[in-house]
Amino acid sequence: MTLRTTIDFLLNDWLDTTALTERARFADHSRETFDAVLETCERIAREKYAPFNRLADTQEPHFDGEKVILPQATHDAQKAYAESGMLSAAQDYEMGGMQLPYSVEAAANAFFACASVSIGTGMLTTGNANLLMVHGTDMQKEVFAKNEFSGRWSGTMCLSEPQAGSSLSDVATKAVPDGADFANDPLGPRYRLKGNKMWISSGEHEINENIIHLVLAKIPDADGKLVPGTRGISLFIVPKKMVNTQGALTGVRNDVALAGLNHKLGWRGTTNTLLNFGEGKFPVEGQAGAVGYLVGKPGKGLACMFHMMNEARIGVGIAATMLGMAGYYASLEYAKNRPQGRPITGSGKDAAAPQSRIIEHADVKRMLLAQKSYSEGALALELYCARLVDEHHTAGGAEAEEARLLLEVLTPIAKSWPSEWCLEANSLAIQVHGGYGYTRDFPVEQYWRDNRLNMIHEGTHGIQAMDLLGRKVLMEDGKGMALLANRMTATIHRTSGIPALAAHAKSLGRALQDVGAATQQAWSTGQPTEALANAVPYLQAFGHTVLAWIWLDVAACALDNDPKQEQLSTQGHVGCARFFFHYELPKIGAWLSVVQSRDLTCASFPEGAF
Amino acid sequence: MTLRTTIDFLLNDWLDTTALTERARFADHSRETFDAVLETCERIAREKYAPFNRLADTQEPHFDGEKVILPQATHDAQKAYAESGMLSAAQDYEMGGMQLPYSVEAAANAFFACASVSIGTGMLTTGNANLLMVHGTDMQKEVFAKNEFSGRWSGTMCLSEPQAGSSLSDVATKAVPDGADFANDPLGPRYRLKGNKMWISSGEHEINENIIHLVLAKIPDADGKLVPGTRGISLFIVPKKMVNTQGALTGVRNDVALAGLNHKLGWRGTTNTLLNFGEGKFPVEGQAGAVGYLVGKPGKGLACMFHMMNEARIGVGIAATMLGMAGYYASLEYAKNRPQGRPITGSGKDAAAPQSRIIEHADVKRMLLAQKSYSEGALALELYCARLVDEHHTAGGAEAEEARLLLEVLTPIAKSWPSEWCLEANSLAIQVHGGYGYTRDFPVEQYWRDNRLNMIHEGTHGIQAMDLLGRKVLMEDGKGMALLANRMTATIHRTSGIPALAAHAKSLGRALQDVGAATQQAWSTGQPTEALANAVPYLQAFGHTVLAWIWLDVAACALDNDPKQEQLSTQGHVGCARFFFHYELPKIGAWLSVVQSRDLTCASFPEGAF
Repeated sequence: MTLRTTIDFLLNDWLDTTALTERARFADHSRETFDAVLETCERIAREKYAPFNRLADTQEPHFDGEKVILPQATHDAQKAYAESGMLSAAQDYEMGGMQLPYSVEAAANAFFACASVSIGTGMLTTGNANLLMVHGTDMQKEVFAKNEFSGRWSGTMCLSEPQAGSSLSDVATKAVPDGADFANDPLGPRYRLKGNKMWISSGEHEINENIIHLVLAKIPDADGKLVPGTRGISLFIVPKKMVNTQGALTGVRNDVALAGLNHKLGWRGTTNTLLNFGEGKFPVEGQAGAVGYLVGKPGKGLACMFHMMNEARIGVGIAATMLGMAGYYASLEYAKNRPQGRPITGSGKDAAAPQSRIIEHADVKRMLLAQKSYSEGALALELYCARLVDEHHTAGGAEAEEARLLLEVLTPIAKSWPSEWCLEANSLAIQVHGGYGYTRDFPVEQYWRDNRLNMIHEGTHGIQAMDLLGRKVLMEDGKGMALLANRMTATIHRTSGIPALAAHAKSLGRALQDVGAATQQAWSTGQPTEALANAVPYLQAFGHTVLAWIWLDVAACALDNDPKQEQLSTQGHVGCARFFFHYELPKIGAWLSVVQSRDLTCASFPEGAF
Repeated sequence: MTLRTTIDFLLNDWLDTTALTERARFADHSRETFDAVLETCERIAREKYAPFNRLADTQEPHFDGEKVILPQATHDAQKAYAESGMLSAAQDYEMGGMQLPYSVEAAANAFFACASVSIGTGMLTTGNANLLMVHGTDMQKEVFAKNEFSGRWSGTMCLSEPQAGSSLSDVATKAVPDGADFANDPLGPRYRLKGNKMWISSGEHEINENIIHLVLAKIPDADGKLVPGTRGISLFIVPKKMVNTQGALTGVRNDVALAGLNHKLGWRGTTNTLLNFGEGKFPVEGQAGAVGYLVGKPGKGLACMFHMMNEARIGVGIAATMLGMAGYYASLEYAKNRPQGRPITGSGKDAAAPQSRIIEHADVKRMLLAQKSYSEGALALELYCARLVDEHHTAGGAEAEEARLLLEVLTPIAKSWPSEWCLEANSLAIQVHGGYGYTRDFPVEQYWRDNRLNMIHEGTHGIQAMDLLGRKVLMEDGKGMALLANRMTATIHRTSGIPALAAHAKSLGRALQDVGAATQQAWSTGQPTEALANAVPYLQAFGHTVLAWIWLDVAACALDNDPKQEQLSTQGHVGCARFFFHYELPKIGAWLSVVQSRDLTCASFPEGAF
């Protein structure tokens, strides 16, 4: 199946995405308009992204002393993307948007991630502008968000600092009011920022006219001290080049300077930077400090930022998923064409027979089926979550609330699961290629390198695990967790009478019970040190249980349409579900056992014994 | 613990290596001479290898049209290695060797793999010369082996071909007798070879004076046809430059030409080549065909080659292990020094407290302990196997025979287990570093790239799995498997009365039973297609069971010396064992379930449904 076929099945047959067109916001849309968006994106990805994926890897961004140089292909690709209107796809018509459901936007963006994840589409620009649409003033929307949506300017998110990667409470960038009338700037209360930001993607480049940084910083209290913890954090718009209220450049450079480019293992098409804010390299009006305009209320910066977190994390999940998919397609193609050895038959091997294609070997099939079940399963999960975003935004009432809660619980899985298992898929894609997979003549080694980032950025695996077991499954009296269990139970009920799925339904029921029991046992002493000591194994078990549910539900849908499994695609869906239930779901036992027993082997291991 | 401390414990406390000095071959040796070898190698590795590991990665070998250029550091390192005498460490005194036990040689070589795996030590040169010592004529030993052991020449193994990677039965390189008196050449029956060899490590370079290729090729039958299958394969010495019986270069270049360098994901310090034999670029005496001298009997080439296979596979296992260890040391160092966040306490977090070092976080400890248990466990396994090589060669009688059989069963694990799990260790080493681990400013990303090769070369994971379940556990009526079970049972008996280990002993007993039962059930229908459909999950379960046994045995030894666990090193060994039994061994359930049920989900998945 092609990526397009897979997406069509998931969006239409499984998620009934066109049902969204019954809502006022999407009333002008139809299956046809959705298809047109997918087609356009598929074409741009094929023409402008895929052919340059290796080039983006080998021609890493470099700084010539004045400018950061990227390959021309990256400029061209991002221009084509901006021209497609995808940057503002979800926005109102009045903002120049398409009022597209997020689930269709996410599916359309998947084509670019599959073609070349690191050339990039502008996920940060969209996220940045989306945030301003929610928390910004009208002027901030008009000047900053609008010019980002059009592709005239691009955007970044500046959270981490060299001494504070995952630990945002230790942000040390300072923002002080810029003069007595700081509150009266039409672009927003005006501050001067000083500090260093690390891991800033697209922090410096010449792809478009200006870069709009969204920066977390702390406003000192009356004594000039920074408030410890995350409560003291505020959010600021810091443009690379100063602009006026008309959105024109004023010709003044803001005091944001590139301190260094990070040289990465992969994902090399995207510049990653260390930025110095307010070090005095480009003083504005003769004064130190980068000019920044406050967004929202002081001290509420993290809340503003986290507003976009679910979508950003789904975005990372999709990137990881699409790298898995790209490796799957490449290794499937190779396996179909590469002759090597002979499959075992009942009577052994016949050395005089011609060589077979390697797809005829059982173990190669195992490696392909694992990749397919990881990456197609992950894609289904991501689109399911994307749909929840649409439900949260447009369903209204109790349904919207239910979607919000489900999203809270599922987001750590949507982010972490593909990061781990589609990376494993990429390793299998290399393995299918044998020695050739280890060379740079084939694309799979790059997918594997690119994908290794996803367990790190937008909250590491460890952070996702703490979020899930420490917060999400407990929040609002476990209501999100209960809602998820209800959905799983509904799928179990629906499938327990279908012969091809009944055994899986039973297994899922057991897994759900086991995860529930482990959650209880982890917290049974009420000690976070004990409950969270094995948060990552818990995340892994939870993720595998969610994916098993997704596969069961997807297979049920395929069988609804084709109960006799007459189509190969149905055999594919049912086979993937079977693979997942036979080969993958049983892994949760090992992960849950340490959670249940609140095993402190690691936590209590003496440092000196390492 | 340092690598040296770990090796000392395993060699002396656990394996009682000095007991070997009671045997005639090692009678001149003592703990002191063994220590001196380890010390020398540790020093050379520290001075000549470690500082240049990144350089070897960034200054990839390149061909300038005439020569393959490698960094000067690689020349210097290999020269220092040759001068240490390690190339002939295991050889007789008369050959200039040290008559060192293989287990000490393997341990000493581990330092180089840890410092820079791809600068390389000459494993292929030693393997090549060792093979000639067993199967070559006196003249071949004198001319070729001796000059390889001295480091004057280097050696390669030429097995794979572009159309025949894992499938040696499809070797198409031809060897025809070179003239009527071909049988009378003093260097061995003289043939002319024609064909292409792929994936040849160190196939071309200028590090030393000459390169001695050992080449698999087929001698056509009376009808000029190649015998299908592996039975038709013979083995030839093909020097890059022609030599005389005095071991002097004759000034004539042999017809072996570099067809291309492979550009790899990692392991870049080692040249990897495609070689053309006999394409006519360098005709010898005006005739086509590379000159090759037969080793051993015609048609017995693969048997000669496989004679060295156990040691070659242990060598790969050690390389994988040492990369895991290198990543562990790097991430441990980082975790001890990097401040970030605050550990959870019973009362939550105090944002105003200073940041902690990340080693204080439970999940970072988990990632470090996993790395430690993977890589130190793997090292123990490799040294155990190396000791079996010594027993096989020098114990004599039934003990030697037992060692041979155990080695047959354990070799697929020694090769595959570290390739998979020390790669996982390297991924965890990246994760401990967070974003920094994804940059090329830290060494861990290179370890991860370098290590990805080990699941591919010297027999892929799939090949090892077929070897284990298809051959090794069945051979000689399952005698090797039974011997291994006996050894495990002995460890279980020995530890079931020790409070800290009794529960582990019980778990190992159950795992051993489960693996035994799965072996039976896999073969219960006698159909190789069914038995071997899940050979890789079987290999994984078998490997984890072996490692659990190794850890139990190592921990028992540590407790023998220090029953009250007063030393940190004992706490480390016991903690690693505990980690392995709690977090790792339970994984075998999922792998064995598909083996036991002879699950055909993958094997029967229709190609069109992918």
